Amino acid sequence: MQTISINNSQKLQLQPLEMPQRLLLGPGPSNTHTEVLQAMNTPPVGHLDPAFLALMDEIQSLLRYVWQTENSLTIAVSGTGTAAMEATIANSVEPGDVVLVGVAGYFGDRLVDMAGRYGADVRTITKPWGQIFTLQELQTALETHRPAILALVHAETSTGARQPLEGVGDLCREFGCLLLVDTVTSLGGVPIFLDQWGVDLAYSCSQKGLGCPPGASPLTLSQRAMEKLQQRRTKVKNWYLDVSLLSKYWGKERVYHHTAPINLYYALREALRLVAEEGLENCWQRHQNNVEYLWESLESLGLSLHVEREFRLPTLTTVRIPEGVDGKALSRRLLNEYNIEIGGGLGELAGIVWRIGLMGYNSRQESVDKLVEALRALLVGK
Amino acid sequence: MQTISINNSQKLQLQPLEMPQRLLLGPGPSNTHTEVLQAMNTPPVGHLDPAFLALMDEIQSLLRYVWQTENSLTIAVSGTGTAAMEATIANSVEPGDVVLVGVAGYFGDRLVDMAGRYGADVRTITKPWGQIFTLQELQTALETHRPAILALVHAETSTGARQPLEGVGDLCREFGCLLLVDTVTSLGGVPIFLDQWGVDLAYSCSQKGLGCPPGASPLTLSQRAMEKLQQRRTKVKNWYLDVSLLSKYWGKERVYHHTAPINLYYALREALRLVAEEGLENCWQRHQNNVEYLWESLESLGLSLHVEREFRLPTLTTVRIPEGVDGKALSRRLLNEYNIEIGGGLGELAGIVWRIGLMGYNSRQESVDKLVEALRALLVGK
Repeated sequence: MQTISINNSQKLQLQPLEMPQRLLLGPGPSNTHTEVLQAMNTPPVGHLDPAFLALMDEIQSLLRYVWQTENSLTIAVSGTGTAAMEATIANSVEPGDVVLVGVAGYFGDRLVDMAGRYGADVRTITKPWGQIFTLQELQTALETHRPAILALVHAETSTGARQPLEGVGDLCREFGCLLLVDTVTSLGGVPIFLDQWGVDLAYSCSQKGLGCPPGASPLTLSQRAMEKLQQRRTKVKNWYLDVSLLSKYWGKERVYHHTAPINLYYALREALRLVAEEGLENCWQRHQNNVEYLWESLESLGLSLHVEREFRLPTLTTVRIPEGVDGKALSRRLLNEYNIEIGGGLGELAGIVWRIGLMGYNSRQESVDKLVEALRALLVGK
Repeated sequence: MQTISINNSQKLQLQPLEMPQRLLLGPGPSNTHTEVLQAMNTPPVGHLDPAFLALMDEIQSLLRYVWQTENSLTIAVSGTGTAAMEATIANSVEPGDVVLVGVAGYFGDRLVDMAGRYGADVRTITKPWGQIFTLQELQTALETHRPAILALVHAETSTGARQPLEGVGDLCREFGCLLLVDTVTSLGGVPIFLDQWGVDLAYSCSQKGLGCPPGASPLTLSQRAMEKLQQRRTKVKNWYLDVSLLSKYWGKERVYHHTAPINLYYALREALRLVAEEGLENCWQRHQNNVEYLWESLESLGLSLHVEREFRLPTLTTVRIPEGVDGKALSRRLLNEYNIEIGGGLGELAGIVWRIGLMGYNSRQESVDKLVEALRALLVGK
């Protein structure tokens, strides 16, 4: 053994873990179904165990179902939603590619930053945060920029706005570009029809509409996107997220690539199973019904909502902070006194709105009632 | 709601998750302590919850302890070990940097591939798989290549060899380069003294010596490595793993970067707490004692070990497959008939060795006894 003596200065003496029980009504993570937690708690097997490979196949099928796609390359990447976002950019962008990003919120900006890092010639169209792009605006931008990729955020988590996608895929085919879409806050909670809409690359997360803990994130590429990948002149500038390597692990070859986060895949499989058991259409309808109940309840408190009704997400609602109210202080009291988490605004909307999520398991009338009761007490008491 | 009808072709009707119970004696993941699984099962809180931020601080301290470093930037990245490996490369390499990699196994090759993707001018020194580099060989290579970074694998998971690191940091300072070290299969199980050895960048995983499920992976950068990062002329070509952004989430600013895999951080905190409770020196000694018992037991079966005794890892042992034995078939029988997983060889050692891990919770005499009993039955029965 070594003769160097051990430095114990960072050796904390800790008690076993105890965490507070929160009702998570922010932009995610949201609370998870107890059956999902129980599945996650199953002792791990190896990442090449036949039983695990069979589970990966189940995840692939059920992800196709919730996304409404037949894309062969439909997998979960071993990281949170941002990793899956980066996977779409890293695999599709080659240096010099024109990438046109629709920016009407924080996650549009993130796509711009990421695409730039992979050498894209990034162009943007912008809207005030909380608004959406019309088909005509997208067509004009495609004519102007002639991009290789158009990137849009279906569900802008920072604003609560839903970008309609009907017709956009046809436009992209007309202009010979790929359509890349952020569905982080829509998958499982908002109607999505990837194939009908002609989406070529999409990513999501596990901890929102699917009601699973974060850490394993859905990714899908259409045949057109796979062709662009196969025709690359340069290696993908990201080893961990290289789909040409990942597809050999998820596909028939079963070539080792990296050790998957086994237990999170257990959880994801179980969360997807529960969505299928409920039925996707019922799951979407539940999110819609509960969010409408939330909107009415918030308006009955005299609060106003940031996004025009037609384009509001069923999963995430932005509420304007009333004049004279300290938004941060109120969130802190909600957390400390009621164990309820809601989110604050980001970027343009910092200090302007709160963000309230009703996602997955948390999309229930009971969640709304608890929150509204607490908000009433805190706002009346101000 | 949409009028498009739902495609149910991928909607599987599944039963709740049931997985086999395996004794994981491959190259990882290994089995986890029940207290770690229990902690992971705690319902998640938000990634900006004060209770979670406090837990992140605990993880940072305890990672410094197990790595024996005072590096301020010591965190867990939100992916498996390969993501942490990529984080060291992505943050330290700028296009054109000479990166010298010591390749004596699969993970040396992976470093070469990764560094190339980030624009490095990659040079290599090589040894047959299972051997190590002497200080003299490293000095000669540094003189020849004058790299910006020397990358070595402390514990080569594909061969079971331990690369001695005493004196290497001094050499790197003499030649003005950073020392980057893979400690994936050593952290928690093999004596490591990062600061004493002058290591500048290191990465590891959670599912080996720490006995935690995979998915949250240790990363540390010395002050010298942080200075190189701060002096970059270009943005880090990886958004998810950009330490200049990650450090604002893990540091005092607490700026949102991505949603952490909350429950895996619970598990990692608990696994680290258990190592501290046992005491790092006791943990290392336990790994050493149990692996020596394994070596004797294997040799008593007439098996021979691939690596010279002095450089064998206490965490992972490579055993030569005896002539006339179908290595893959035996592994399959071990898994199917005894629920024991061991690993096969990679690359140069494919078909030549089995890989047997005794890591974290699984480094126990009982694991050895179960494996040796099964091996005896299968080898005598051949």
